[in-house]
Amino acid sequence: MHLKKLLPLAAVATMLPLAVFAQDADVTPPNEEIGFIFTTFMFLVAGFLVMFMAAGFAMLEAGLVRSKNVTMQLTKNVALFSIAAIMYYLIGYNLMYPGDGWTIDGILGAFGPTALEPVGLAGAEPDLTYASVGSDFFFQLMFCATTASIVSGALAERIKLWPFLIFTIVLTAVIYPIQASWKWGGGFLDQAGFLDFAGSTVVHSVGGWAALAGALILGPRIGKYKDGRVNPMLGSNLTLATLGTFILWLGWFGFNGGSQLYMDTAGNVADISRIFSNTNAAAAGGSVAALILTQVLYKKVDLTMVLNGALAGLVSITAEPLTPTLGVATLIGAVGGVIVVFAVPFLDKLKIDDVVGAIPVHLFSGIWGTIAVTFTNSDASIGTQLYSIVVVGAFVFVVSGVLWLILKAVMGIRVSEEEEIIGLDKAELGMEAYPEFGRS
Amino acid sequence: MHLKKLLPLAAVATMLPLAVFAQDADVTPPNEEIGFIFTTFMFLVAGFLVMFMAAGFAMLEAGLVRSKNVTMQLTKNVALFSIAAIMYYLIGYNLMYPGDGWTIDGILGAFGPTALEPVGLAGAEPDLTYASVGSDFFFQLMFCATTASIVSGALAERIKLWPFLIFTIVLTAVIYPIQASWKWGGGFLDQAGFLDFAGSTVVHSVGGWAALAGALILGPRIGKYKDGRVNPMLGSNLTLATLGTFILWLGWFGFNGGSQLYMDTAGNVADISRIFSNTNAAAAGGSVAALILTQVLYKKVDLTMVLNGALAGLVSITAEPLTPTLGVATLIGAVGGVIVVFAVPFLDKLKIDDVVGAIPVHLFSGIWGTIAVTFTNSDASIGTQLYSIVVVGAFVFVVSGVLWLILKAVMGIRVSEEEEIIGLDKAELGMEAYPEFGRS
Amino acid sequence: MHLKKLLPLAAVATMLPLAVFAQDADVTPPNEEIGFIFTTFMFLVAGFLVMFMAAGFAMLEAGLVRSKNVTMQLTKNVALFSIAAIMYYLIGYNLMYPGDGWTIDGILGAFGPTALEPVGLAGAEPDLTYASVGSDFFFQLMFCATTASIVSGALAERIKLWPFLIFTIVLTAVIYPIQASWKWGGGFLDQAGFLDFAGSTVVHSVGGWAALAGALILGPRIGKYKDGRVNPMLGSNLTLATLGTFILWLGWFGFNGGSQLYMDTAGNVADISRIFSNTNAAAAGGSVAALILTQVLYKKVDLTMVLNGALAGLVSITAEPLTPTLGVATLIGAVGGVIVVFAVPFLDKLKIDDVVGAIPVHLFSGIWGTIAVTFTNSDASIGTQLYSIVVVGAFVFVVSGVLWLILKAVMGIRVSEEEEIIGLDKAELGMEAYPEFGRS
Repeated sequence: MHLKKLLPLAAVATMLPLAVFAQDADVTPPNEEIGFIFTTFMFLVAGFLVMFMAAGFAMLEAGLVRSKNVTMQLTKNVALFSIAAIMYYLIGYNLMYPGDGWTIDGILGAFGPTALEPVGLAGAEPDLTYASVGSDFFFQLMFCATTASIVSGALAERIKLWPFLIFTIVLTAVIYPIQASWKWGGGFLDQAGFLDFAGSTVVHSVGGWAALAGALILGPRIGKYKDGRVNPMLGSNLTLATLGTFILWLGWFGFNGGSQLYMDTAGNVADISRIFSNTNAAAAGGSVAALILTQVLYKKVDLTMVLNGALAGLVSITAEPLTPTLGVATLIGAVGGVIVVFAVPFLDKLKIDDVVGAIPVHLFSGIWGTIAVTFTNSDASIGTQLYSIVVVGAFVFVVSGVLWLILKAVMGIRVSEEEEIIGLDKAELGMEAYPEFGRS
Repeated sequence: MHLKKLLPLAAVATMLPLAVFAQDADVTPPNEEIGFIFTTFMFLVAGFLVMFMAAGFAMLEAGLVRSKNVTMQLTKNVALFSIAAIMYYLIGYNLMYPGDGWTIDGILGAFGPTALEPVGLAGAEPDLTYASVGSDFFFQLMFCATTASIVSGALAERIKLWPFLIFTIVLTAVIYPIQASWKWGGGFLDQAGFLDFAGSTVVHSVGGWAALAGALILGPRIGKYKDGRVNPMLGSNLTLATLGTFILWLGWFGFNGGSQLYMDTAGNVADISRIFSNTNAAAAGGSVAALILTQVLYKKVDLTMVLNGALAGLVSITAEPLTPTLGVATLIGAVGGVIVVFAVPFLDKLKIDDVVGAIPVHLFSGIWGTIAVTFTNSDASIGTQLYSIVVVGAFVFVVSGVLWLILKAVMGIRVSEEEEIIGLDKAELGMEAYPEFGRS
Repeated sequence: MHLKKLLPLAAVATMLPLAVFAQDADVTPPNEEIGFIFTTFMFLVAGFLVMFMAAGFAMLEAGLVRSKNVTMQLTKNVALFSIAAIMYYLIGYNLMYPGDGWTIDGILGAFGPTALEPVGLAGAEPDLTYASVGSDFFFQLMFCATTASIVSGALAERIKLWPFLIFTIVLTAVIYPIQASWKWGGGFLDQAGFLDFAGSTVVHSVGGWAALAGALILGPRIGKYKDGRVNPMLGSNLTLATLGTFILWLGWFGFNGGSQLYMDTAGNVADISRIFSNTNAAAAGGSVAALILTQVLYKKVDLTMVLNGALAGLVSITAEPLTPTLGVATLIGAVGGVIVVFAVPFLDKLKIDDVVGAIPVHLFSGIWGTIAVTFTNSDASIGTQLYSIVVVGAFVFVVSGVLWLILKAVMGIRVSEEEEIIGLDKAELGMEAYPEFGRS
């Protein structure tokens, strides 16, 4: 995703390549209104794809937790998406795009609920070189919600419902939008030349950092690390975990493709095509890398690693899905898959209990993807990329950590030992996900 | 959904706001053929989203029934969608849009199978101000199928397969199209000023009335109400119920967004963006309302209420997803969520056994949504809205009731006690959904 | 899918009907760049729908195998899709469209990894009458992956992972692209007048032939055919099988609709609308035919037959989803449904063990659909259709057979008896899909 709204010149910039090519091919650029319809509709299509990722996360996480915690995981996923919708509307969206820049006036002026353009655009002066406000809001909201989805998986099976939801409120209203504005709102990271097309850092690592802070403060599940051994706690439904992965894979076409932000010219739609193809290639690369690596390392293919490998491939290509060739995209994704295979046991060694592998997938691969931009983009600076990774990481990790600590002090964030052993479904919700099944 | 086909002037009307704005912004309207492509493609995209709602209903219902009735519920859902496709093609579509209005000639002239425009539009005179007949048929069909989907959930776990399918034939061929024509075919409700953008009444309450008539005549499941107590009969798979809800949520963007009926101008695509955003806001409002309310009332969040709350929010905004602000849309949806939380036990008090909560979600929230139009649309009359709710309700409830009674008399609509206790899967179909699982 | 790339005149041909109509309606054709955007975006939307079919196949197959083999089936489905992405990029795509035709030079010139158009089309000379290379690649890749998905179901529950994946490599890199080039690359079948719009033969029967060769060489599952009786081996999760069917149904709109290959004119988008409607009608026809037929034959509706009936209907209409009327499309699909109901026991009689019914659905209905083109297209020759069915069938069956035999000789393709009885999940992967469930 380019920065936007503040700099309508970006639109011009993205059209330049076409302008060049237009001279060759004698193309009359379409009129502005048509471009507006194309881009707006593209945002809506990309947006509903990303919205569906909420279902993907829900299925992935429900499939990877034990059956006694499934209802809770589902409840969290539906609730966090709903909360994100409300908070991003009330505060987040405007906070992310301070109209007059990052001055006190700009921030205060921006603070407040999102207002869409009037019905039929009556009396409005829409930016016909871009898209309707409603479509932009819809699309951007889904990125905010994705960030929250990432957190829920890592902290599963022991966190209380309400502290998690309160954290979600702050994350989607304030933490995500503030740091997102640094890049996509035209803030200081953007001005420093930071490149993060669709959010390897701005979305995925942010979710990862918040999850890491939470996992450290929560501590591991009872029995996970005992007598120096790692106790595997098997996911209860790998079919749904696989479904969730496929849904996320599908949604990623919207995530990365929509981040082109324009579909008003042949050049832009061709770029979106590149992005779709590269996104798919990276997922395939991550999946195959994990497939081969688990076979080599463990003599058995590990499906959950393959799934997380695909997701890591997707996260890895998210910082720059446009410029790589298909081959390079496959390799960038493959490195993501390798990262996951090594990072999951590495976290276990550190006794950081990440139930679904969200930290390897979203944080580590997000960092990798952000660095990988320097291999494909001549205008990328490794220093700026690292600086931005650190700045965003420090901000999110510290603020999240403080918030988790406050929640812990005020209301407690972890269920009791007894409740954890019984399972959150019975203990906290009184409702099992599969009341008729189970070997016991 | 505006009325359409009969009144091509509607197209002009929806363009007026843009025309106004066009003067400000010096926009040249795109040419007709481009508008035709935009709108037609929009119908196809919206249509496949609504089509996918069939899967959403199937998952929601399969998740909320007990495992011994899952195969039957799945069979009904696949069959009803298929039957709807055939009956709406054979009879329903033309019946819904009587070409020459509601005269005898008009009706007879319209009666008959749907004919699409010729390949390549060769020799045809398409309405370039609107969309291709094929895309309109595809989109409208999905609304008819949705109505049938609503019925199946309420009557689950005790109705026989074939009477249900015969009911579906009549519902999709005749009942739905006739009442839909009153509004969307330019009939008397439309002329009276009834407003129902995407079908809170025309689709959702219709499904709800048909379900209510069926539930009353069928009676509750054995053991549901015993000794003055309500016996909870737990859904067998809340993961799939959650997946179903997310799929419905996704499909609703097509349901409401496509009902704008035009995407040929900046004003129309901006309106579709508003609709997407408002639809999402209402679902979030309904979900969060049920979340908070169940916590307050029962001290425990109830996931099935949260899911139905989201769906109730979606139904509530369906009568007018365009004009509300995001905040008002959230509130309209939230009221839907509140309705569900109170209506589910209320129906139980009346011993009306609605297995999945279809009546609170689709009928009660549908009525609420239809009334709520008067809060946001200055041209809406509360009298007309109520009158239309009553007329449609009386028609559907009476005709459905008579049909259920005839089916009951002729072939019986309920399985035997023994079959019900064994479960419909073994008793009627001889095939279990989860043959390897189960605690017993 | 028309042939393409080699014959840009096809674009002109598809516009002719509109040109005729344009004279009547005084339509100015949209400019080329707008047409390019429309068609490219259409490919991306259709492509992501077909991509999602990978999830559909995974769910269908995971639902229809026994729970002890589910993790393996999921692993295969994720892996084959990833492998297809990589091999089609490395070899398949260019092999399928030999630039200078089927000369040695043409083939060698084409051989090599896919290169997309440059970012922003800078310096490129895109074919503005068609679509971006990236969108075409993305769309075509999904067809290749679908072919591989078809194979995995038939061979489930006894084939080893790695031989299957090696077969997938060859299938997606070489076998599929070579035969696809005969029709869609403008090869000899195309020149002979073979008609196969979206691939009843080129995709579905190819998957079916490869599966049949594999099933014959693998042999049936232990205990499937014993003492002259067919032992039913029940699918473990019919809910997921139903979900998979609905996802495939949804994806088929992209599969068939996108195969129109152009959305740049009113005529083309109206044709895509016809295709959507006909595709849906055929699925409904197949589903209802199987519903009625199993009721009549067995006195019980068989859900798995209804699901496969819907899929058979979809395969049947794939060779020509454009020209039939809705009624004829329904009938063509219904015949597919009938084929499935009779073909499943027929294969069992031959002791060919096709776990999910892939051969009846994709091979038999694919042949039927290819023949049915002669009923609706005056330019279709039954001789050419049969000739093409045989040529493609012989090629794929023989090459696949040889490959399976080589794999069998070199590394073995079947797990040991003990492993098969334990289940592939525990034996080969050491990971169960539902570790907490099961009656035992």
